Amino acid sequence: MDNNIVPSERVGRLDKSSSNYDIVIVGAGPVGLLLSTCLARWGYKIKHIDNRPEPTKTGRADGIQPRSLDLLRNMGLKPAIMAHEPAKVYEVAFWDPTSAGAGIQRTGTWASCPSFIDARYPFTTLLHQGLIERVFITDLNKNGVDIQRPWTIKGFKADEKADPEYPVEVNLEHIEGKAKETVRAKYLFSGEGARSFVRDQLKIGIKHKDPIAHVWGVMDGVVKTNFPDIKMKCTIHSDHGSIMVIPRENNMVRLYIQIASSTDKDWNPRKTATEAEVQNSAKRILKPYNIEWERVEWYSVYPIGQGIADKYTLDHRVFMGGDACHTHSPKAGQGMNTAFLDALNLAWKIHHVEAGFADRSLLESYEPERKLVAENLLNFDAKYAALFSQRAPAAKDVAAATEQKKDTEEENQFVKTFKDSCEFTSGYGVAYDPNALNWSPSHPAQSNVINPKGNKLRTGRILINSNVTRVVDANVVHLEQEIPVNGSFRIYVFAGKPSVSGQAIRGFAQNLTKKSSFFSSYLRSDLDTVSHHEQHNPHSHFFTFCTIFASKRSSIEISRDVPEVLARYRDHIYADDIWDHRVPDAKAAAHAKMGLDEEKGGVIVVRPDGYVGIVTSLVEGRETVDALNEYFGSFCTKKLAEHKAYL
Amino acid sequence: MDNNIVPSERVGRLDKSSSNYDIVIVGAGPVGLLLSTCLARWGYKIKHIDNRPEPTKTGRADGIQPRSLDLLRNMGLKPAIMAHEPAKVYEVAFWDPTSAGAGIQRTGTWASCPSFIDARYPFTTLLHQGLIERVFITDLNKNGVDIQRPWTIKGFKADEKADPEYPVEVNLEHIEGKAKETVRAKYLFSGEGARSFVRDQLKIGIKHKDPIAHVWGVMDGVVKTNFPDIKMKCTIHSDHGSIMVIPRENNMVRLYIQIASSTDKDWNPRKTATEAEVQNSAKRILKPYNIEWERVEWYSVYPIGQGIADKYTLDHRVFMGGDACHTHSPKAGQGMNTAFLDALNLAWKIHHVEAGFADRSLLESYEPERKLVAENLLNFDAKYAALFSQRAPAAKDVAAATEQKKDTEEENQFVKTFKDSCEFTSGYGVAYDPNALNWSPSHPAQSNVINPKGNKLRTGRILINSNVTRVVDANVVHLEQEIPVNGSFRIYVFAGKPSVSGQAIRGFAQNLTKKSSFFSSYLRSDLDTVSHHEQHNPHSHFFTFCTIFASKRSSIEISRDVPEVLARYRDHIYADDIWDHRVPDAKAAAHAKMGLDEEKGGVIVVRPDGYVGIVTSLVEGRETVDALNEYFGSFCTKKLAEHKAYL
Repeated sequence: MDNNIVPSERVGRLDKSSSNYDIVIVGAGPVGLLLSTCLARWGYKIKHIDNRPEPTKTGRADGIQPRSLDLLRNMGLKPAIMAHEPAKVYEVAFWDPTSAGAGIQRTGTWASCPSFIDARYPFTTLLHQGLIERVFITDLNKNGVDIQRPWTIKGFKADEKADPEYPVEVNLEHIEGKAKETVRAKYLFSGEGARSFVRDQLKIGIKHKDPIAHVWGVMDGVVKTNFPDIKMKCTIHSDHGSIMVIPRENNMVRLYIQIASSTDKDWNPRKTATEAEVQNSAKRILKPYNIEWERVEWYSVYPIGQGIADKYTLDHRVFMGGDACHTHSPKAGQGMNTAFLDALNLAWKIHHVEAGFADRSLLESYEPERKLVAENLLNFDAKYAALFSQRAPAAKDVAAATEQKKDTEEENQFVKTFKDSCEFTSGYGVAYDPNALNWSPSHPAQSNVINPKGNKLRTGRILINSNVTRVVDANVVHLEQEIPVNGSFRIYVFAGKPSVSGQAIRGFAQNLTKKSSFFSSYLRSDLDTVSHHEQHNPHSHFFTFCTIFASKRSSIEISRDVPEVLARYRDHIYADDIWDHRVPDAKAAAHAKMGLDEEKGGVIVVRPDGYVGIVTSLVEGRETVDALNEYFGSFCTKKLAEHKAYL
Repeated sequence: MDNNIVPSERVGRLDKSSSNYDIVIVGAGPVGLLLSTCLARWGYKIKHIDNRPEPTKTGRADGIQPRSLDLLRNMGLKPAIMAHEPAKVYEVAFWDPTSAGAGIQRTGTWASCPSFIDARYPFTTLLHQGLIERVFITDLNKNGVDIQRPWTIKGFKADEKADPEYPVEVNLEHIEGKAKETVRAKYLFSGEGARSFVRDQLKIGIKHKDPIAHVWGVMDGVVKTNFPDIKMKCTIHSDHGSIMVIPRENNMVRLYIQIASSTDKDWNPRKTATEAEVQNSAKRILKPYNIEWERVEWYSVYPIGQGIADKYTLDHRVFMGGDACHTHSPKAGQGMNTAFLDALNLAWKIHHVEAGFADRSLLESYEPERKLVAENLLNFDAKYAALFSQRAPAAKDVAAATEQKKDTEEENQFVKTFKDSCEFTSGYGVAYDPNALNWSPSHPAQSNVINPKGNKLRTGRILINSNVTRVVDANVVHLEQEIPVNGSFRIYVFAGKPSVSGQAIRGFAQNLTKKSSFFSSYLRSDLDTVSHHEQHNPHSHFFTFCTIFASKRSSIEISRDVPEVLARYRDHIYADDIWDHRVPDAKAAAHAKMGLDEEKGGVIVVRPDGYVGIVTSLVEGRETVDALNEYFGSFCTKKLAEHKAYL
């Protein structure tokens, strides 16, 4: 097998009739659908089942956070989602009892994604999960994947010795028992939700971080009210109980009401409430305002406890993600977003292993990276609740928190928690720990060009946003969005000023194209027949290059300033010539935002899922490429060019 | 007939089987489709025919200018158009022969919509006309209108005496003569293009402003080339002829080549060239660069001369628009855009007359307003050609032109022409002359509150863009886009600081709701049963109100600060609290951009098509509403409140 033939090159050769699949995905909620969508686009053969006869009709998750919007845009799915005109939450309002006992009053508001977070979309969108699912399903259908419904999983076993290529046997069945199927696969993924058959079979336990369980009532409907903040996200405490208000598309509003808590004296996890009881409760809580329901779209009562699975996989063949791995209160609107990022994290790793780029051990990074996020989410969930159960934050604390402060200034606990929580709920707070992918001083790659002085990027965190001008067509673009979710590492060559960095960039190109560099070792097998229109992967399925000059667009002549190998990515040559209010005095704002030298530049390697892997300076000679060879060499399948350590 | 029942209220009562229509529209190109789309949304009964069996398959117009993008967004159609990923032109490049005779070299570039124009979308998009047509057709279908194809018009006559309600008789026929129909209508519209049967029948002449005619070759295709600006709009002069390059969607490029001109010695309007001849000509012109065609999607040779119809209507029952009224060279990409705005101008005027708001004389403003634009377009077309036929602009002149200069500074002729041409091609240069709709000192409405000192808006021109925060949901929005193309006048009450303007705004509301004010005189007939979800027209089909305070969002309490009549437009209450780099020192940027007092505010009336009608200060007492009564009284059907002139 030629390791460099990725599945997308052998789609035509996939045996559609065989019962062997690259992956069986169980569950067509957010986590299963995002995984399926990525792998289908990259040419994998997928069996995707769901035990529901059709996508979610009403209710369920509905919040898409800023970081998830970035991701959906990067996948080209955002326009279809925004076409449904979701509600957008820019601020959260806090309501508390008046001291006079005359009902509730607003005690404060804050931005849901304050300006200290550099977000393209500083708001949460709220939209019915079924509409979101259908956007993914439409994309899957285009790539030849249909969700098989209503089917369920009845059993599975993995045995690498019996069948090294398709080690997982999976037994599937129509939910009414009408039909059965046994298929073989390289991987099995459970996106089944909190009650995961796969997790149960694997006897993977759930740890309950916070022992308190709750019963929640959730009601989606159209109301008539004079409550002024009905189109905002609100946390309302009253003498008659508490409620959370979440605006929705089509004039709808979602209300969360806590019906019971395990801290109650008469705690009963089966306690329930009728629709009318919840409405009456809401009416009492909202006084002096009135509220009437024109229509209830969905009403549900469900018990929920915080829980986290002990393992996300046992053998790196059978994986789980989404609610199968972590459950928590719905209040922070994190469920779907965490599910999306679980799926994205796994998708490219499976791809890089199956396409022959990465060592199989890469899959071992899925669980620690994503489990850490789930643990943070559960901790945050508890802290978030505590933060607001007592009082609304003081205005001056919120003001202090929303201002951009220098890192050195002292912050009080509230401000710190507030900032962390905003970063967390926006999705920008995710920081993966050091490992082979996320460089740290203990990484095998060691060189004095790594992590250059001034660098503002943090490995394991998302790339900082920036605006640049594309040279070939003068379009002003969002640099971080320029490479789609194509499964490739994104290598941003910040090239500084051509007059200063010319020698260094030519050296970079020269060393890049040397035999057994990370780049030359993973060229496409169909290199000679690639269309000249190919924008992102003309040479390799594993790398896309962007070159960004710290000069005016009109001064850049690609044929003169850009070495041939980088010039081939002609749609990915940019001028860093757009002013940015966050670095108002910078001559080259993107360089400045990244903390790279505006004259000498630097190189940023971003993982296929958008997180920074390693940052180096751009120097004359071979050191820059050598450092990248060492970085990639720590997890790829081939021995890369000899290198020296410079420390 | 109750004049205030607009068609949308009587849709259910429309007799679908009758052969009487509100309007017969001939031609389903841009002008016919936009007219049809507006009128269908507003509840009119439409017969729309086109003599082509299906929408445009290839070629034809393709440029959408910044102002048209605003309009398409305002109609909710922009996302569907952008989903096709049109090419975006931000800059125009100029290429000229090298002095050494070694082919061509770039001599300059300039922004197609420089920053001195305050555009939301400072670029031209290029997309196949057929895709644009289909977006409109999908919308029409939703509103019950199907294009009847392939049908043509065979005759028509208008006789108000014979049938005052449906005076126009129209004879339609299948193009193969398979079927015939005679229908009656209130209006007939010809959007037939340059060869208009209706125009011929009416014996309306065409005036040729520039006597020079040209034969153009146009080729859409996919090329392989090392010409660096193939993704930019380029004007190329060479020793072997001239060519214009326009990028398109899907890696396509359009080339315009002039094949013959009536200034040639051997001028022959039937001169033609084969596809291969044009390609060979392009190859010679582009040297030292090479170009090869992978595929040609469309190739056409056509003679074109500048022309303008003497009249757009004879009787204000039979109207024409688009290419039926004006033809010109395709180089400035103005055809479709001018067509759109012809249609928009007519659509709301027909609506306001038929719905009983405006006097029938309102229709008389269509021809002068739109014919002026066509005349400017033809003048511009000639000037544009002249400006570049000799030389590329000097870099310093372009630099001077693209900087924002004070009005008082002197500008050289080139700079002035450049600015005018940018404004014109972007669509922001349209300025309608004074008339009943566009206030001027000679308007019947006379008051010292009109046209307050400092006002930066110009009647007959588009509303200036601004960002504000919507109070109910804290969403940051584009104010000029907040009211959709709903056929209503847009009344922006800039309310200044509540502490200063409180009395004035209460007075405004009080006088607004007085019997026989412009507002009270045109209330909806179904006022009592309007849904509380109605955002834009809760009171009247002819007015939508926005109220904008010069204060922080969190300080505005609608129930306290906004009088009831304006508070009913709860989704149209805004805080002017977003910083704008064009007025960096303003406390209330939107107020400042309009040139309104940041404390006292002012009132802006914008026509349903987005052009400013009148601007007044917001004063205590009755003067502000009185001035608006006078303004609307000059063209509406009812006698409005008594008023006094204050001059």
